[in-house]
Amino acid sequence: MSASQSYPSINALSGPLVERLVADAATLRLAVSQAPGGARMVDAGAQARGSIEAGRRIAEICLGGLGTVTIAPSGPIASWPYSVTVHAADPVLACLGSQYAGWSLADETGDSGFFALGSGPGRAVAAVEDLYQELGFRDSATKTALVLEAAGGPPESVVAKVAEASGVKPEDLTFIFAPTQSLAGSTQVVARVLEVALHKAHTVGFDLHAIVDGIGSAPLSPPHPDFIKAMGRTNDAIIYGGRVQLFVDADDADAKQLAEQLPSTTSSDHGAPFADIFARVNGDFYKIDGALFSPAEAIVTSVRSGATYRGGRLEPTLVDSSFA
Amino acid sequence: MSASQSYPSINALSGPLVERLVADAATLRLAVSQAPGGARMVDAGAQARGSIEAGRRIAEICLGGLGTVTIAPSGPIASWPYSVTVHAADPVLACLGSQYAGWSLADETGDSGFFALGSGPGRAVAAVEDLYQELGFRDSATKTALVLEAAGGPPESVVAKVAEASGVKPEDLTFIFAPTQSLAGSTQVVARVLEVALHKAHTVGFDLHAIVDGIGSAPLSPPHPDFIKAMGRTNDAIIYGGRVQLFVDADDADAKQLAEQLPSTTSSDHGAPFADIFARVNGDFYKIDGALFSPAEAIVTSVRSGATYRGGRLEPTLVDSSFA
Amino acid sequence: MSASQSYPSINALSGPLVERLVADAATLRLAVSQAPGGARMVDAGAQARGSIEAGRRIAEICLGGLGTVTIAPSGPIASWPYSVTVHAADPVLACLGSQYAGWSLADETGDSGFFALGSGPGRAVAAVEDLYQELGFRDSATKTALVLEAAGGPPESVVAKVAEASGVKPEDLTFIFAPTQSLAGSTQVVARVLEVALHKAHTVGFDLHAIVDGIGSAPLSPPHPDFIKAMGRTNDAIIYGGRVQLFVDADDADAKQLAEQLPSTTSSDHGAPFADIFARVNGDFYKIDGALFSPAEAIVTSVRSGATYRGGRLEPTLVDSSFA
Repeated sequence: MSASQSYPSINALSGPLVERLVADAATLRLAVSQAPGGARMVDAGAQARGSIEAGRRIAEICLGGLGTVTIAPSGPIASWPYSVTVHAADPVLACLGSQYAGWSLADETGDSGFFALGSGPGRAVAAVEDLYQELGFRDSATKTALVLEAAGGPPESVVAKVAEASGVKPEDLTFIFAPTQSLAGSTQVVARVLEVALHKAHTVGFDLHAIVDGIGSAPLSPPHPDFIKAMGRTNDAIIYGGRVQLFVDADDADAKQLAEQLPSTTSSDHGAPFADIFARVNGDFYKIDGALFSPAEAIVTSVRSGATYRGGRLEPTLVDSSFA
Repeated sequence: MSASQSYPSINALSGPLVERLVADAATLRLAVSQAPGGARMVDAGAQARGSIEAGRRIAEICLGGLGTVTIAPSGPIASWPYSVTVHAADPVLACLGSQYAGWSLADETGDSGFFALGSGPGRAVAAVEDLYQELGFRDSATKTALVLEAAGGPPESVVAKVAEASGVKPEDLTFIFAPTQSLAGSTQVVARVLEVALHKAHTVGFDLHAIVDGIGSAPLSPPHPDFIKAMGRTNDAIIYGGRVQLFVDADDADAKQLAEQLPSTTSSDHGAPFADIFARVNGDFYKIDGALFSPAEAIVTSVRSGATYRGGRLEPTLVDSSFA
Repeated sequence: MSASQSYPSINALSGPLVERLVADAATLRLAVSQAPGGARMVDAGAQARGSIEAGRRIAEICLGGLGTVTIAPSGPIASWPYSVTVHAADPVLACLGSQYAGWSLADETGDSGFFALGSGPGRAVAAVEDLYQELGFRDSATKTALVLEAAGGPPESVVAKVAEASGVKPEDLTFIFAPTQSLAGSTQVVARVLEVALHKAHTVGFDLHAIVDGIGSAPLSPPHPDFIKAMGRTNDAIIYGGRVQLFVDADDADAKQLAEQLPSTTSSDHGAPFADIFARVNGDFYKIDGALFSPAEAIVTSVRSGATYRGGRLEPTLVDSSFA
């Protein structure tokens, strides 16, 4: 994100991916419908069956068309061989500027009780989150899409809120949703392995502009019908089975510190499956140490010095006890 | 394949892949010709050299455009690192509805002695196999393609038979053929690792509609000039080196039973390279225990309960003795 | 490259890849400019930041559109999990006919001191290298591209030299450059793992026309700001961490000999990181045993006999000491 270069439009890049997802609805087993407010709803795992491939493609939409998500026959955890790999040339823009589920979408005017966190290119059009000021980035578009880890599409009041904040007409909005329990939902969440690393880098105060490339991988977590268990597995895929390599334009001391601060091992909650931790705090998300939300293993290469630093470690036994 | 969703047309999806294969004939080293009956013949390994990449693309055509086939630098068997991974959002439709080599194409009127098993999207247009009644699926198309594991294209009588059964004019039929001994032939056969798992699931009576996603991988078997040895290696790649993960909408008991019944270890013939078994039965294919034709290792995840069951085991030593 | 088949045009195949690279300049963080002579310059890692993805795409351009380059989450060296895989249906044409950095481009008329080795499809249009006579291949094009492992674009005199040799107007030439120290530069050099194998096969006198398919992989080497160290790492990625499988239409004796002669272990210089060897010869490249420039491990399959031969071995400890 150097100042000398113009930003690509993540909506221009991801728009064709959204249209292709809709065109391939039958193949991917998605249900596409028109909501009362006029917005397009893509059900990828609630009433519709969905698929791992739908999740993979949704993850690429989340990345604003700036990155690739691939399924490989091997990865960090040998006993769960099929893995997701995320790669983005500009990981900060792709992951924080687009993929991060940072837009709180609650139904404030209606009484649906709907709540979801919006992810994807629509966030950068509205840019209501403080993060966009820090990133110094905003996108404009006349059509956009949001991805929701949710069991249903948003009610009319939330559609209207998104339309207003982004200046995009409801009929030009696409909401893609899949619950964590579904194949597509779990896949697109595990594909956040690189994003959580960037988010934690941000939290520990590392200069985001210094992160110049990144790749991450994590085992595909098997879906679970119970929301808590499903959420636990997608988190454990990253926390105990995820691995990232970041390339940073930073001095050795900063790169070394990042490698030490990045992995989930720095958290006092590290060591138990996420669902157990969640039960221990009686489901109060905010009592969980935020440092837990990061990959198991971090490899940080300073492109300034050429040195590579490492932190954390994979925990195959914990992944097994979570996924089994 | 839930009743609430329309089926994608596997011919509409795979048609462009067929045209691209033909357009890239020089790159992939294929020989394209017009047969006497007017059908298009694509030689991918008989007189033409062909390539692993041609086999990979042919495998995607076999899957009716519903799945992806990728080559990875690692996979189930460490000593044969290059592997094939097959992934399909709707594995039953992709593998059984299209890829399975189930259409018996013998030259009954002529005297060529030609015999091959037709695979690919053309099967679903003719739908002469009983399997299509079970699947409740049929495709219509005015152009279609069949893939043959064969050393030559079909004679005019077989072309006419296919044209009649499918209602497609001979000049709108494409036959893609490659012998098992060729690079393309061995690649496209190893890419059946997921299909044989589904076929065995069918054989043991598992409800096909309950299989909602699947991924499989197996080592690329080195081609062999002798047909029996070549066939042996492609089978061994799957039987002793193949691994699949199926996601099923089934109860625990059924998922567990499937994981136990699926792998090749359930066969009384398990334990020797396929070519040896074939010699033992004096080349009488039907004396081989059908349970042998399945991947070495099965991972079955119930999306209904979240539990994962495993069966079978990889046999690297047997793969080595077959491939060496 | 059998005589019965026409050659694909590597410029027709790679042209669209060049245009897409330029179109995605913002995403890949490239700087595109018009040089005084009118040629188009794509900076992928000198003043521009570039990216691993830019390097991956540049490598596919180098291969003349005949091959694929992929990033996988695992590969030959466990401690450097992210790896590059190169696959080409016609590896001799892709790697030697296009990718090999064989065109010496020195500024002979000006005084810039510019020197680089040209790689990519433009080589086959000019065909000034003796190698093209041996390959019996030449491509014609009215637009073409060259890739340079260099810290800057060529001066006007070199552009003019390329234009004259290839018969392509300066304004129809694209020069893509990235220094070895950059993300894109190191990625595209490591993606030469298959090419160096073919080059060594050529050097030891193996019949190139007998090489009918090939795949190679090597760990992504971390960039280093010092040219010697950066060059050392990209070489070590291949020499100590690279693995290739070649498929040859040759007798057992020849295939076996190739497997023995191919790997870097045959070199008297084998055993130390490349930068140390370079220092030992006081930077005189030509004092280094040429046999060193080849992958660590070779797997050679004779498609004529079906036998597979192996040579060399991975050296993870040496890769670690080079990359760390």
